[in-house]
Amino acid sequence: MQDPSDYIQQHKERFLNELINLLKIPSVSADSAHSQDVINTAEAVAAALSEAGCDEVEVCETSGYPIVYGEKIIGADLPTVLVYGHYDVQPPDPLELWDTPPFEPVIKETELHPEGAIFARGACDDKGQMYMHVKALEYMVRNNDLPCNVKFMIEGEEEVGSPSLVTFVKENREKLKNDIILISDTGMIAADVPSITTGLRGLSYVEVAVTGPNRDLHSGLYGGAVANPINILAKMIASLHDENNHITIPGFYDKVHELSEEERQAMAEAPFSLEAYKKHLDISAVYGEKGYTTNERNSIRPTLDVNGIWGGYTGEGAKTVIPSKAYAKISMRLVPDQDWHEITELFTRHFISIAPDGVKVEVTPHHGGQAYVTPIDHIGYRAASEAYETTFGKTPIPQRSGGSIPIVSLFEQELDSKTILMGFGLDSDAIHSPNEHYGIRNYLKGIETIPYFYSAFTRMKESE
Amino acid sequence: MQDPSDYIQQHKERFLNELINLLKIPSVSADSAHSQDVINTAEAVAAALSEAGCDEVEVCETSGYPIVYGEKIIGADLPTVLVYGHYDVQPPDPLELWDTPPFEPVIKETELHPEGAIFARGACDDKGQMYMHVKALEYMVRNNDLPCNVKFMIEGEEEVGSPSLVTFVKENREKLKNDIILISDTGMIAADVPSITTGLRGLSYVEVAVTGPNRDLHSGLYGGAVANPINILAKMIASLHDENNHITIPGFYDKVHELSEEERQAMAEAPFSLEAYKKHLDISAVYGEKGYTTNERNSIRPTLDVNGIWGGYTGEGAKTVIPSKAYAKISMRLVPDQDWHEITELFTRHFISIAPDGVKVEVTPHHGGQAYVTPIDHIGYRAASEAYETTFGKTPIPQRSGGSIPIVSLFEQELDSKTILMGFGLDSDAIHSPNEHYGIRNYLKGIETIPYFYSAFTRMKESE
Repeated sequence: MQDPSDYIQQHKERFLNELINLLKIPSVSADSAHSQDVINTAEAVAAALSEAGCDEVEVCETSGYPIVYGEKIIGADLPTVLVYGHYDVQPPDPLELWDTPPFEPVIKETELHPEGAIFARGACDDKGQMYMHVKALEYMVRNNDLPCNVKFMIEGEEEVGSPSLVTFVKENREKLKNDIILISDTGMIAADVPSITTGLRGLSYVEVAVTGPNRDLHSGLYGGAVANPINILAKMIASLHDENNHITIPGFYDKVHELSEEERQAMAEAPFSLEAYKKHLDISAVYGEKGYTTNERNSIRPTLDVNGIWGGYTGEGAKTVIPSKAYAKISMRLVPDQDWHEITELFTRHFISIAPDGVKVEVTPHHGGQAYVTPIDHIGYRAASEAYETTFGKTPIPQRSGGSIPIVSLFEQELDSKTILMGFGLDSDAIHSPNEHYGIRNYLKGIETIPYFYSAFTRMKESE
Repeated sequence: MQDPSDYIQQHKERFLNELINLLKIPSVSADSAHSQDVINTAEAVAAALSEAGCDEVEVCETSGYPIVYGEKIIGADLPTVLVYGHYDVQPPDPLELWDTPPFEPVIKETELHPEGAIFARGACDDKGQMYMHVKALEYMVRNNDLPCNVKFMIEGEEEVGSPSLVTFVKENREKLKNDIILISDTGMIAADVPSITTGLRGLSYVEVAVTGPNRDLHSGLYGGAVANPINILAKMIASLHDENNHITIPGFYDKVHELSEEERQAMAEAPFSLEAYKKHLDISAVYGEKGYTTNERNSIRPTLDVNGIWGGYTGEGAKTVIPSKAYAKISMRLVPDQDWHEITELFTRHFISIAPDGVKVEVTPHHGGQAYVTPIDHIGYRAASEAYETTFGKTPIPQRSGGSIPIVSLFEQELDSKTILMGFGLDSDAIHSPNEHYGIRNYLKGIETIPYFYSAFTRMKESE
């Protein structure tokens, strides 16, 4: 195939402007106030797919937000790549911590992005990374460089657990039939250290409510005499980790595999500076499960974090109240073989069991997903590795990610195909945080690398 | 003196309507959005004092909200009663739990208030109880039944810790000179069981902030590898009580007196049904410090309660974030001889000391006050007891309250006089809670009882 870089340089401005326009739409799937914006984003993605060269594009209705499907079939006997991505984004709050409005994209240079980065919610996760595939298709179609069939499935509910995707995939197995699934929704180790994510953690996300007295009480008249839901919730949350930061839920670790010393050695070879990590986060020390390194703690070990907590008086000034209720959102990251349904059940049973008399506890599961692993000898992995080598001049490092993309295991189960996670984001891109951004170089490198994957995969597949 | 009840019956409707008009003004001192309402309430109180017969009324500016002063001096040689009260109210939230809007007073009958109760924020705490004294003055002046001098000091910052009152009292010792201070800002045991509050708990109210990473992080990529401020805050709060619910702050109990068996016996004689208490709050069990009864826990023992907690994502749906910060508002109720400044210092030192590496902790003291006790052989107490006997036909029960009126100990220190706490509210009046209300009968009984206190106190004082 030809080198796409000239074409990319010629159309660079347009590629950036098209992404910027997409980023201007606040497609926050978690907030129903933005439902029209989410729908408008689906329409915009559909239009972009047609423009890029898909012969057939549909905005498929679901019980939630639509799934955008597009395809370009050039030969029944050729391999098919299915691209998955999502057009919805995380809520932008806390808004006051953004240097510029989350939905008014601006390009700024940063230490890690001397060529500039686009700052906006969704810039990296996942509009920017998803759109690389649309532009890569445009390149391949317009330059007669598309070696195989391609299908797109871009959803709008990834940030809320993809509730509609399961049904869609189950009902469209034929339509979605493919030889490999390609996703760019992860990161790389560093701008000059390409990596391919070979493992993902599973997830169980729950919300808990602790109810004490049937109404808010005066803390003077009742303080010390009734169970205070906030104190109780704090006590219950604290008890979920022991002094070594192991999770105390009975059965939680039963299916967790310990990695071999060799595997841990291999992981330890990835370039990592604890000092830089702490400096970057402005923390004096890391914190986590005893006996594991930082990179192990955030990838091969299961974890439990409170993502949100609220109760009582949180306004200006002071109010001497014992609230009736206190709440928390709690998520657990899981590793291969931990079944998220089972873990959610274990959590629920345990959390209710540790509630003292005098309070009522409710646990509401939000969503979850299974962990996933890609073998590095799979041709999909080898094709991706070759593509990175061509554009970065370096063999990418296989990497286990701490993140979760629950649908990846769903795809394997329902579509019987493996997923290749070609991520171009950096940890410092602040996805899910204020001032999320995505490097222009990463964006363009992605567009350049993807066509090489198509050609390598097609070649390998045909010579299988 | 004459029996005030005829006059009260004749003017009942007006007495109620005047209070209702006062309750319509949302004088929430904790919320700066209501500052004009607070100031308007001060003006309304000033007007009511003049109307009731004060010869001199001032709205005294302070660095915060004004203090309304009024006086009726009828003889240099006569004793002087100083009435203290407050015209500000607690914030009304959570608004959704109110059956009717908090600042649109309505009269409804309840099981405990068959003659009706006024439902509104401040109905009992403290506009209703404060206004009884204004109407009692009106009765005494218009019926030539005022036996002594009277002064009023009604502030607008009680619910935020009376920041301006200290200075005002220190600067106006002469003006505020008195023989006894009378306050109605507490409760009675039951509608037919009058009681006089002889003890108040002190208070230390602080706000804490725990900061982890310098920005919100993705819980997948960082989960388990950095200290999560919410988990840490929960752990720190949980550690403030041991398995017996004793507070673990070093030195916290050093100055706490254990009551004698006799004193505890006497307390235990107050009518109390644990079953009714639990039923009223809809809780299956009470909860608190081991070795003490419910009535001891909420009156003679110091306590620590979280009044509010917040951090991370608390909106609709799910967000997989590790927040940068988590916060809590924490208050401690104190008993006689625990100095609130010292306790605040002990809390701060301890709370910072238990923070693990990897987080930063800030503790900001909000406000506080000392505990207080009135001896039951004091003539103020004896006069109040006689007044209740006259109007209720029963000797009132001396009662230690769990609440705090920090300024009571300030008065003793600065004005060198004792305070009598003649409360007419019921625990069930839901002060500081949604649907706060005040019984019409309690309101009128208060207006009837107060003049008897004036005559009894004057007689006893002159025969001292």
